[in-house]
Amino acid sequence: MSYLPIQQLLKTTPGPHVTVTVKGWVRNKRESKNALFITLNDGSTINNIQAVAERGPAEAGQLSDDVLKLVTTGACVAVTGTLVESQGAGQAVEVKINNIHVYGPADPDKYPLQPKRHSLEFLREIAHLRPRTNTFSAILRVRHALAFAVHKYFNDNGFYYLNTPIITASDAEGAGEMFRVTTLDPVNPPRTEDGKVDYSQDFFGRETNLTVSGQLEGELGALALGKIYTFGPTFRAENSNTTRHLAEFWMIEPEMAFYELPENMALAEDFVKTVIRYALQHCPDDLAFLDNRLKEEEKMKKKEEQSELGLLEKLQFVISNEFERLTYTEAIDILIQSKPAKKGQFQYEVKWGVDLQSEHERYLVEKHFKKPVILTNYPREIKAFYMKQDDAPAVGARGEVFGPTVRAMDVLFPGIGEIIGGSQREDDLDKLTARMAEVGVEADAIWWYLDTRRFGSAPHAGFGLGFERLVQFVTGMGNIRDVIPFPRAPKQAEF
Amino acid sequence: MSYLPIQQLLKTTPGPHVTVTVKGWVRNKRESKNALFITLNDGSTINNIQAVAERGPAEAGQLSDDVLKLVTTGACVAVTGTLVESQGAGQAVEVKINNIHVYGPADPDKYPLQPKRHSLEFLREIAHLRPRTNTFSAILRVRHALAFAVHKYFNDNGFYYLNTPIITASDAEGAGEMFRVTTLDPVNPPRTEDGKVDYSQDFFGRETNLTVSGQLEGELGALALGKIYTFGPTFRAENSNTTRHLAEFWMIEPEMAFYELPENMALAEDFVKTVIRYALQHCPDDLAFLDNRLKEEEKMKKKEEQSELGLLEKLQFVISNEFERLTYTEAIDILIQSKPAKKGQFQYEVKWGVDLQSEHERYLVEKHFKKPVILTNYPREIKAFYMKQDDAPAVGARGEVFGPTVRAMDVLFPGIGEIIGGSQREDDLDKLTARMAEVGVEADAIWWYLDTRRFGSAPHAGFGLGFERLVQFVTGMGNIRDVIPFPRAPKQAEF
Repeated sequence: MSYLPIQQLLKTTPGPHVTVTVKGWVRNKRESKNALFITLNDGSTINNIQAVAERGPAEAGQLSDDVLKLVTTGACVAVTGTLVESQGAGQAVEVKINNIHVYGPADPDKYPLQPKRHSLEFLREIAHLRPRTNTFSAILRVRHALAFAVHKYFNDNGFYYLNTPIITASDAEGAGEMFRVTTLDPVNPPRTEDGKVDYSQDFFGRETNLTVSGQLEGELGALALGKIYTFGPTFRAENSNTTRHLAEFWMIEPEMAFYELPENMALAEDFVKTVIRYALQHCPDDLAFLDNRLKEEEKMKKKEEQSELGLLEKLQFVISNEFERLTYTEAIDILIQSKPAKKGQFQYEVKWGVDLQSEHERYLVEKHFKKPVILTNYPREIKAFYMKQDDAPAVGARGEVFGPTVRAMDVLFPGIGEIIGGSQREDDLDKLTARMAEVGVEADAIWWYLDTRRFGSAPHAGFGLGFERLVQFVTGMGNIRDVIPFPRAPKQAEF
Repeated sequence: MSYLPIQQLLKTTPGPHVTVTVKGWVRNKRESKNALFITLNDGSTINNIQAVAERGPAEAGQLSDDVLKLVTTGACVAVTGTLVESQGAGQAVEVKINNIHVYGPADPDKYPLQPKRHSLEFLREIAHLRPRTNTFSAILRVRHALAFAVHKYFNDNGFYYLNTPIITASDAEGAGEMFRVTTLDPVNPPRTEDGKVDYSQDFFGRETNLTVSGQLEGELGALALGKIYTFGPTFRAENSNTTRHLAEFWMIEPEMAFYELPENMALAEDFVKTVIRYALQHCPDDLAFLDNRLKEEEKMKKKEEQSELGLLEKLQFVISNEFERLTYTEAIDILIQSKPAKKGQFQYEVKWGVDLQSEHERYLVEKHFKKPVILTNYPREIKAFYMKQDDAPAVGARGEVFGPTVRAMDVLFPGIGEIIGGSQREDDLDKLTARMAEVGVEADAIWWYLDTRRFGSAPHAGFGLGFERLVQFVTGMGNIRDVIPFPRAPKQAEF
């Protein structure tokens, strides 16, 4: 293969004898009386390379009009020529064209990605082509860098990657509505005597769904291998068309034996800072482009709705501040004392026992502490059954005694609110089964999960991070459908 | 956290003032008249650490019988003591016990993993506990190392990780039976006027399935970003209970713009050698254990059924031999001329046009060439519609002219046969759609795929590797259900 990706070509030393071949897609073609300029991109970088031909008798023979008329935006070409110092600004090198071969043209009357600004809504409809734009290729390269940073972080720190099942017979986590997975005849499924669907005849011999979380199986792994993490697709069949939800998304779930809540918090902070730092180090050009894109977008907004920080500033803000740690009870007290509460500016009421809304989380992060926040020890009633129960009740600032709490933790970020949710897990079999009975989780359905508390139980903890939320935060994209290649949402499964 | 994983403890310099805490699970406890020996493992390594207490008046107070009776196989404990040079053979250090804390006991009458040999069949029934055994913890650590090596390889070589969709509305690849994904009422689904299920009322507004391959979407990515790879779960709803098939498995699919068949083969060879070399470098203890396990297993077999090579020898064999490249047509000629063909020892007939069976592939790899083999240019009729059509027909050794071929490639390995399947893709819109019409793939269903050939089409190629097949090969495990944490197969979706 006698050609280099443009990313490498742009770093190559030019010279009169440096013959190169560029393979890529035409972003733009400009012609002047004396010269022809073709801008090429091959997806390896946000930066284009320019190919130039002086138009004179010598070139005319090689660059026939038949070829040149096919060199339009979107066409795929191979350009061979000499790598020379660039005459224009903003680029070190350019290619003096000797020859052009057109692999595949792109009819200008039909190709939808002509060189002009396209709305994100329009690009969502052509998600099969949008990775060819600057914005989406930048997002996907940053997404790649973040995914690699996730694997590298856990590998460097002694975690083992555990592939928990996608198809599952358990709905114990209760994290949300599930998709059914079946091979039964959809029109006339086999039935039991009492008229129900006879799942014993289904592929797996029972009713199965797509997983909403790999945590329970992750705990099995941690209580054998010590430290594990999952990184795979998870699913929610919730009929909510929002900019924050997908029906199919990727989740990262580390789980660690012998970690309690403080170690869990320390890991979450170190983890998320490390992967963001990795993206800043490895994607400077893509992030500079996205920073600029966001600035342009912000300019369209009213002054008071504009973000105080730019994208890069916000990323620096997160990696350079120590996350503030406080309990839910302390946070409620701060919120009750806050200006917006006293002025009646919160939409939702603040009181001990209710879940915090995005407006409250953002107030704590963006106004009060001005840094990322980790809230802990939430009321037991608003958290999942498997979280470790605190021994003592919570006590408020004025000595009020509140109901039981659990060793939960939520990491809150500027702009997006909760980015990580986790907890220490209940490792006491009796407390766990008592809580399951209270909230109606059947012990028989997860006998295998309870076995970990029966045999060699250990303190352990873990957390979950929605990967797309992280990509949204790092790329500054407002709609979660723009940070995954092919989004799945209600009524949307194209491509 | 004032404790180290056993993997690190075993490398720590001992001394009279080196106080350590070991947290892990009891593998074994031995008592002699004068001493107590506890073998501990925490999953970080295949190697155990031994904790020792001399039994005398001084220790008796600290190690009460109440505690010691809970220290049984499977119990989780923290042992604090001094790290000293080991008196026994086979280990550098051991812990002289000062104190033992029991996190969770494991009733010897109920805990199924007592220290004796368990069959793989039995361990499959307790897949939630089997990672606590030597064999399965070794497999899972090697699986992790291989997964990380995959990401590292592609990242190092300029590929971007692309998450193709799991839920899909297209069945164009035709790679196998699919699982339906739905939220419709299973008993009384909404119906259209002609009595069919009305999928327009389903979650996605159409019929959807679990993906069998990310390739088609991968091609969209490659024709925008240049080089991409997928690494995610794929599904087959085939009712086959074999040691080689899973209903849910993980697949790796790189796809590269501007690669033709020779570059595709070079990549496949370099990729698979690199990840195997990585496992050899990073998992020497686990692979030595698995090598030994396989030797023991082989001893049970009849002499003529025993493998010629041990596990480590087989891995070295693959990374140190250049893969043999030949066409399908050449391979057929070799097979027809072969001893087993002439003696009628092949179960399946060999002739041009039929797909090769495992017995043929293994003959080529293990007997004829004695190295991995890449077969190319298969008959068009036995391969998928998207493979690039060869211009000229195949010509046999005696000048016979055979039917049309495509630029397919299969990489064949000793023991398991095909480990990688790939091809250059048909980039000519007319040839592609003509072939689709012949085999009955509807153009409307994959209009987005065809758009890549309409707009800026480029030569490109890629391949697929079933991750579990690779893990099987590297760990030497005979049953694919033993190399994934929680296998999914007909009638099997527990855990």
